[in-house]
Amino acid sequence: MFAESHGPQMSQQTKKLQVGILVCPGFAIVDTIGIHSVFGFTPDAEVHLLWKDKGMIEAIPRFPVHATTTFSESPRDFDVLCVGACPDEILRDEETLAFLKDRGSRAGYLVGVCSGSLILGAAGLLEGYRATSNFHVMDLLPHFGAIPTRQNVVIDRNRYTSGPATGGFDCGLRVLEKLRGEEAAKISELSMEYIAQPPFGTGSPELAGPELTRKALQLFAHFTEGTRRTVRELPSRRAS
Amino acid sequence: MFAESHGPQMSQQTKKLQVGILVCPGFAIVDTIGIHSVFGFTPDAEVHLLWKDKGMIEAIPRFPVHATTTFSESPRDFDVLCVGACPDEILRDEETLAFLKDRGSRAGYLVGVCSGSLILGAAGLLEGYRATSNFHVMDLLPHFGAIPTRQNVVIDRNRYTSGPATGGFDCGLRVLEKLRGEEAAKISELSMEYIAQPPFGTGSPELAGPELTRKALQLFAHFTEGTRRTVRELPSRRAS
Repeated sequence: MFAESHGPQMSQQTKKLQVGILVCPGFAIVDTIGIHSVFGFTPDAEVHLLWKDKGMIEAIPRFPVHATTTFSESPRDFDVLCVGACPDEILRDEETLAFLKDRGSRAGYLVGVCSGSLILGAAGLLEGYRATSNFHVMDLLPHFGAIPTRQNVVIDRNRYTSGPATGGFDCGLRVLEKLRGEEAAKISELSMEYIAQPPFGTGSPELAGPELTRKALQLFAHFTEGTRRTVRELPSRRAS
Repeated sequence: MFAESHGPQMSQQTKKLQVGILVCPGFAIVDTIGIHSVFGFTPDAEVHLLWKDKGMIEAIPRFPVHATTTFSESPRDFDVLCVGACPDEILRDEETLAFLKDRGSRAGYLVGVCSGSLILGAAGLLEGYRATSNFHVMDLLPHFGAIPTRQNVVIDRNRYTSGPATGGFDCGLRVLEKLRGEEAAKISELSMEYIAQPPFGTGSPELAGPELTRKALQLFAHFTEGTRRTVRELPSRRAS
C-alpha cells in the first residue's frame, strides 16, 4: 500500500483519532509497526511518533528514523498510546516516564508491545493489571505490580499488552474495533492481508521446546541483560 | 528486543550475509519490516536500506526515515534483495529499475512483498515466474510476464513473493532457512514470538467475502489507481 499524500481523506463528521507511539534511540522498530500500520491506514486517524526531539534516531535493528512530534508538541489526550521495546535507559528516564504517566493516565487505550509493557510498568501504569511481554523478561512484570499472564495478547480493562512484532498488529486491530467498530477492524485486517503463516510453528517457548528456547535466550542475552539489571535496581513499584 | 550496539557479535568463520531492502519516498514501511527484523537480528548479517541518497524519506503511513546505503555505495552481490510496495513512480524510474535488474540478476534470493512484486516485474526479474502480490493489483502481474498465483507466499526457484505486511516475515524466515539452516530460522521465529493471532479471520478476500472486499478496494483505490494506470501505460514485458 502507498500513496502520494497522507492516506484516505478525512470526513468532517468524525473526530480524528489521536494515536501516539514512543520512539527513542535504540527502540525496536518492528514492535511499533503493527500499530503504526493499523492506525496509519485508518481514515481520520493521526499517528504521532513521539520523542523528546526530532533529530535522527537509530532504531534496532539499524533503521535511521525521526519522531514526528516532540513531547512538548504532543496532544494532551490520546485515543491510543503505544510503547514497544526500548533500551533499558528508558526505564530510568524520568522525563520519558513522566510524559508517559501523564498521557497514559488519560489515554483511551494503552498498548505495550514486547518489553514496552515494562516501560508502561515503570511509568506506574500497570499496577494491578494483568500483562504480558516477551518471554525473556516477562518475569520482571511483578516488579511494577503487574500480574504476568502468559498469552500472546493480554487485555485487562484498557491495557493491551502483547509479545513482540506481530503482537502490535493483534493489539492494534482489537483496539481499532473498540474505537471504530468491527467492520473497520475487519477491513484493516483484510487490507493488510493479515493471514500470517509462520513457517515453523516455533513462535513460543512452549511450541519451540527447551533446547531452542535456551539458544534463543542465549542469542539475545546481550539485549536483555541491561533490562534485567536495571529493573532489579529500580525502586520497586509493586502494589504492596 | 533492543541493544546499545548492533546486535549479536560476528563470528569470524562466517561470511556476513548481505541483505538489501529498497526504500524510497512513499514506500510502505510495514512491508519491509519482516525482512528487516528477520535478518537484522540474525548474527553475521548486514542489512542495507537502499536508495539513491541518504536524505530524509517519508514512508507511508508517515514515518520519516533514511536509507543507510546509496545505490552507488551498494554491495555488488546480495544474498537477499527485497522490495515492498512503493509509489507507481518507481515503476517508471529507469535508475531504480536498472539498479534492481543488475543486483537482482545476481542476488541469491529475491523477495517481493505486496506490490513490490510488480517492481521486480518492471525490472524484468519475474518473466516466467509464478508470483503473488496484494489482491488489489495482482491481476497486473502478467504485464511483466509473471504468472499470478493466489497464495500468501509464492516460491518459484529463488523468487519469493507475498502479500503485504506479515508476508515479509513469512518470506524472510523461509529464505533464512535456505541461507542459515532450519535451526536459525526456527530461533528467529521464536525470538519474534511469531504466533500472530489475527482477531477477525478476514485477512483475505476469500475469508472476508465480497462485501468487505469491495469496501477495502474502495478505501484503498486512491493508493492503487496510480499503479494500475502506470502499469497499463508501460511497454509490455510479457514473455512472447
